[in-house]
Amino acid sequence: MAFSAPLSILAQQMRPSPIRELFKVIQRPGMISLAGGLPDPAAFPVAEFAACGEVLGRLGDTALQYGATEGYGPLVEMLRQRMGVFLGRPVAAEQLLVTTGSQQAMDLLARALLDPGDTVVVEAPTYPGALHTFRNVGARFAVVPCDGDGMVVDALPAVLDACRRETGRFPRLIYTIINFSNPSGACLASGRRRSLADVAARYGIPVFEDDPYGELRYQGEALTPLFRETDGGVLYASSFSKILAPGVRVAWVVGEAPLVRAMAVVKQGSDLCTSVVSQVLVAEYCRRGHLDPHIRRMCAHYAGKRRALSEALRSHVPAGLARWHDPEGGFFHWLELAGQDSDGLFDRALDAGVAFLPGRHFFPDPAETVGPAADGRPFARLCFTFATPEQLDQGARRLATALAASP
Amino acid sequence: MAFSAPLSILAQQMRPSPIRELFKVIQRPGMISLAGGLPDPAAFPVAEFAACGEVLGRLGDTALQYGATEGYGPLVEMLRQRMGVFLGRPVAAEQLLVTTGSQQAMDLLARALLDPGDTVVVEAPTYPGALHTFRNVGARFAVVPCDGDGMVVDALPAVLDACRRETGRFPRLIYTIINFSNPSGACLASGRRRSLADVAARYGIPVFEDDPYGELRYQGEALTPLFRETDGGVLYASSFSKILAPGVRVAWVVGEAPLVRAMAVVKQGSDLCTSVVSQVLVAEYCRRGHLDPHIRRMCAHYAGKRRALSEALRSHVPAGLARWHDPEGGFFHWLELAGQDSDGLFDRALDAGVAFLPGRHFFPDPAETVGPAADGRPFARLCFTFATPEQLDQGARRLATALAASP
Repeated sequence: MAFSAPLSILAQQMRPSPIRELFKVIQRPGMISLAGGLPDPAAFPVAEFAACGEVLGRLGDTALQYGATEGYGPLVEMLRQRMGVFLGRPVAAEQLLVTTGSQQAMDLLARALLDPGDTVVVEAPTYPGALHTFRNVGARFAVVPCDGDGMVVDALPAVLDACRRETGRFPRLIYTIINFSNPSGACLASGRRRSLADVAARYGIPVFEDDPYGELRYQGEALTPLFRETDGGVLYASSFSKILAPGVRVAWVVGEAPLVRAMAVVKQGSDLCTSVVSQVLVAEYCRRGHLDPHIRRMCAHYAGKRRALSEALRSHVPAGLARWHDPEGGFFHWLELAGQDSDGLFDRALDAGVAFLPGRHFFPDPAETVGPAADGRPFARLCFTFATPEQLDQGARRLATALAASP
Repeated sequence: MAFSAPLSILAQQMRPSPIRELFKVIQRPGMISLAGGLPDPAAFPVAEFAACGEVLGRLGDTALQYGATEGYGPLVEMLRQRMGVFLGRPVAAEQLLVTTGSQQAMDLLARALLDPGDTVVVEAPTYPGALHTFRNVGARFAVVPCDGDGMVVDALPAVLDACRRETGRFPRLIYTIINFSNPSGACLASGRRRSLADVAARYGIPVFEDDPYGELRYQGEALTPLFRETDGGVLYASSFSKILAPGVRVAWVVGEAPLVRAMAVVKQGSDLCTSVVSQVLVAEYCRRGHLDPHIRRMCAHYAGKRRALSEALRSHVPAGLARWHDPEGGFFHWLELAGQDSDGLFDRALDAGVAFLPGRHFFPDPAETVGPAADGRPFARLCFTFATPEQLDQGARRLATALAASP
């Protein structure tokens, strides 16, 4: 059968997926992978989670039946309470939607909000999965630069105005990861949070605050969520993927009821509801009081790995070849290479026995960018959560070898 | 925050959802609901499924981690084998995609195949969830009439040609439930299967063969899947929702590799992968050999209910007020009322203490229909799987009372 897909999907198919590209090379014997953004399976609470399996017997009639599109009642209630405290104001049930991972939250928002050709503001660099989701609905991108304090919010108004001049309308959405960004590891500084909220409100553009890493802070003080700085212009999303396990595919969003309702309408036609089996297991895990102690254990676990990679990079990477900020949480180190292209480095690194993710994956292409595009080639993302501390040290050594072998 | 959604989503929001409309009335004390299309929780294999929970300890590192977008390996392998036998030819791994319910299969196909304004051929009547999913991508509908032998395939070419005349192009997709259709309960007759395959191939229009009920046959002989009648023009979809449990949200599609790959690209941006926890549990359930014995037990269980409603309707509904075909499987009786509007009947039925789903939910609106629209008002869907045999008898009595009370 011949079939012709919509242009946005055809373009997606032509685009090499970073994960697919990497899959084979990271399986090579002896390869140390800092490439994927995977949690450490050794940090999964396997025994505690498996023990919750008894709930499938106790609440089997509920767990095995269709569930509400909005989410499994007890889980929604728990999240409502938790978010009310975290976000600093009561969260009504109709403001919360359980999603099949926060990837789905992004997808539902994109479909509830965007028409093909609309522009989404993203940080440069940003999460490739977000680019993928927005591409699926035919979006274009406008990029705002970042530094060690996250998005350079002072540059945002000019980006918005330039988009208006170039396309005839302002961007329809601002997408941001303000805590321990994937890939940059940066947190948006406090003052910038207020500024971002102000700019978004002034222009009337909703913000998607994607916060899967916020609770994985290994040093320093937690900052106020962007949601708290606004009076309804922010859709806040978080997930169990990083604080419990991605295999459950359970996440949630909190926002204004009309937008959340529109997303629920899209979700009804997307998967009817998130796996009730997963939701019942996650709710039971939380009901037993496992979540917060587990987050504390994971923070200690990942703090050690973060430190291992920070120290290894400092020890092994010759001064002047790359620079980076040590992240205070999350999953990633983000290196800016001095005069090297990370695709070239990638090949030499593979030869040396270490894999990372080259920077270009984290930036929209020039062809899909409104206004000036950013160049991802001088950057490299290193994930420190999956490898062991010994592998992180060895990986940094190998990376340093590859860096020094620059032609 | 003010936000403006794309038109297709705004239109969806204005549309009353049958399930939401019903939710309150079916909770009234003493109400017998034949309205929802829910499996009987008493037929769920709760103990067997819960016992599989031990796999979460044994394979926790896999179950809790991100999984492949295409599906969990052992589950894909099992489905590949099963489908190879059922569909009569080997199914390669790249021809199969695990989805978050077959609702997602539909959604991914719609997004991989349709541009806004494209026309989808549906049976009249058809599954409201399919209409919802296709509306989400801005599709229009062309309807083909049905009788007790399913789609009147002889009428299909004229519908396709009329669509071409009216819109400038042929429909992009034919959607059909050929076994125990929701809502009509009808199976497409053998000869019509071959004709449908021929017409679709002649016009070059792909067919989505949605088959969640195919294995729930209570009498008669299984018919050949449409997939077997073609050389690649059919995407076959089925699900664990009706043969195991909908709460797992695990389904699958089989089709030509390029189309399946395009759907996987969309899925990567939709939810990354289906709940790995659910997939691992379902795979373990199948590995233990539970699935086929359970399907046999369920068929026996539902056969009794089907018989109970058939007999109750025959006993209680006065001749001349309604007619129907006894379904040979699935979940539903579909009544054609003699000169009554099922919305009026619905109100009287609620007063009498029984709920059903009025026919109009199963037909696209005239405004979204290319060519002549079909009228759903003379029809009523009764679900026989959820209620007990006693409730089915009592429900039919109450319905007969409401029918006889016609003004």
